[in-house]
Amino acid sequence: MTNMPLHTDLQFAKELQELKDRLLAMGGRCETMIDEAIHALEERDVALARSVMKADKQMNRDELEIDELVVRILALRNPVGRDLRFAVTSSKVVIDLERIGDEAVNFSERVVELIEAGPLPAPANDLPEMGRLANQMLRDALDAFVTEDAKKALTVRSQDDPVDEYYGQILRAAERYMTEQPEHIRQGMNLASCAKYLERIADHATNIAEMVVFLVRGEDVRHPKNQ
Amino acid sequence: MTNMPLHTDLQFAKELQELKDRLLAMGGRCETMIDEAIHALEERDVALARSVMKADKQMNRDELEIDELVVRILALRNPVGRDLRFAVTSSKVVIDLERIGDEAVNFSERVVELIEAGPLPAPANDLPEMGRLANQMLRDALDAFVTEDAKKALTVRSQDDPVDEYYGQILRAAERYMTEQPEHIRQGMNLASCAKYLERIADHATNIAEMVVFLVRGEDVRHPKNQ
Repeated sequence: MTNMPLHTDLQFAKELQELKDRLLAMGGRCETMIDEAIHALEERDVALARSVMKADKQMNRDELEIDELVVRILALRNPVGRDLRFAVTSSKVVIDLERIGDEAVNFSERVVELIEAGPLPAPANDLPEMGRLANQMLRDALDAFVTEDAKKALTVRSQDDPVDEYYGQILRAAERYMTEQPEHIRQGMNLASCAKYLERIADHATNIAEMVVFLVRGEDVRHPKNQ
Repeated sequence: MTNMPLHTDLQFAKELQELKDRLLAMGGRCETMIDEAIHALEERDVALARSVMKADKQMNRDELEIDELVVRILALRNPVGRDLRFAVTSSKVVIDLERIGDEAVNFSERVVELIEAGPLPAPANDLPEMGRLANQMLRDALDAFVTEDAKKALTVRSQDDPVDEYYGQILRAAERYMTEQPEHIRQGMNLASCAKYLERIADHATNIAEMVVFLVRGEDVRHPKNQ
C-alpha cells in the first residue's frame, strides 16, 4: 500500500475529475459501439454497422486527449501514491478502450459481409448474448476503475468464463457448419471472427479490471506470482 | 516540441538507462519467442513450440517490474518534457510487448495442433517469411523507441504493407484449402489463426513505432488529424 497524501489543491482535484469523466465518456462510446454492432447483426442493419465503423474516429481523438491530460497532470501536479498510479494507469486503460473500439469496428465489418452474403448461419444466434455479456464486463470494469473499487473489479474476471464458453461453442458450431457446407466457408470464417472479436472485448475488459486491483491494492493480480 | 531540461542528476540518468535496458531485454525475449515459434513450425518441433508457451511467464514479470520502475521514476524524479513522455510511453509500450508475447504463445499453440494433425497445409509455407517480417518490424520499432529515432520509427509503418499482403494471401489460400478439403476445416482454421497472430504482432510493432513519433516530435501520428 502506497501513501496517499491529501491533495487539497482544488485545481488538481478538478483535473482528476476531468480525467475520470473523459475515461467514462470514452468507455460510454465503446459501449454504444458494441450495442449498435450487435443490434446491426440482429436487425440485419447494414447502415447501422457502417455507422459503427465511423465512430472509431472519436475514440482516437479521445485517446490523444486523455494522454495529453495525463502528461499535463504528471508535469504540473507531481502526484504521488495512488493519484500517481491512477494517472499512469489511465494512460494504459485508454489503450484497452481504444482497442475495444477497433474490435467493434472489426465486428461490424464482418456483420456487413455476413448480411450481404445471405441468411445468417444458425450459430450467429448466440453472438448477441455473448456481446451483451462482454459489454457488461466493460461497464463494470470501467465503473470499478473510476470508483477505485477492487471488489467490483474482481467480479469482472469471473464474468469472463461464460464469455469464453460462448466463444468455444460458437467456434465449434462454425467448424461444423463449414464442414457440412463447404460452399459457405467465407460465412463460417466471418462467424468465427465475430466471436473472436467479442472474446477480445471481454479480454480488454478483464485487463482493465486487473489494473484496478493493481491500482487499489498496490498489488498486481494481472499475473499471479505462481505463474 | 516540449522543453527538455538538462538532467544532471546522475541517479535519474541511471534509472532512465535501466528503463531502456529493461525494455530492450523484454523486447529481445519477444523476438526470441517469435523466432522459436516460427522455427517450431518449420522444423515440426512440438517441444520447441511448448517451450515458447512457457516463456510467457517471464514477460509478465517484465511488465510488472517495468511498471514499478516507471512509477518510481515519476514519483521520485518528477521528470518533465520528453523524459516525462518517455516514462509514460514506456508503460504503454510494455503493454504491446506483453501482448506480442501472448500472440507468440497463441501461435505456438496452433503450431502444435497443426503438427499433430498431420502434414502441414501448403499455405503454411508462407508463415515463416511473414513471421520474420513482423519480427523485423518489432526489432526496428523498439530500437527506434530507445534511441528516440522518429525517422526509423516511420520506416516501421511502411514495413506493415508486405505483412498485410501475406496475411490476405494466406487467408484466401486457407479458404480455398477448406473449400476443397472440408474434412480438414480445423487445419484450415489453425492456419488462418497463425496468420492472424503474426498480423497482430506487426500491428503491435506499428503501435510502438507510432508512439515513438509522438514521443520525439511531440505530435501524434497514431491517428492522423483528417480521420
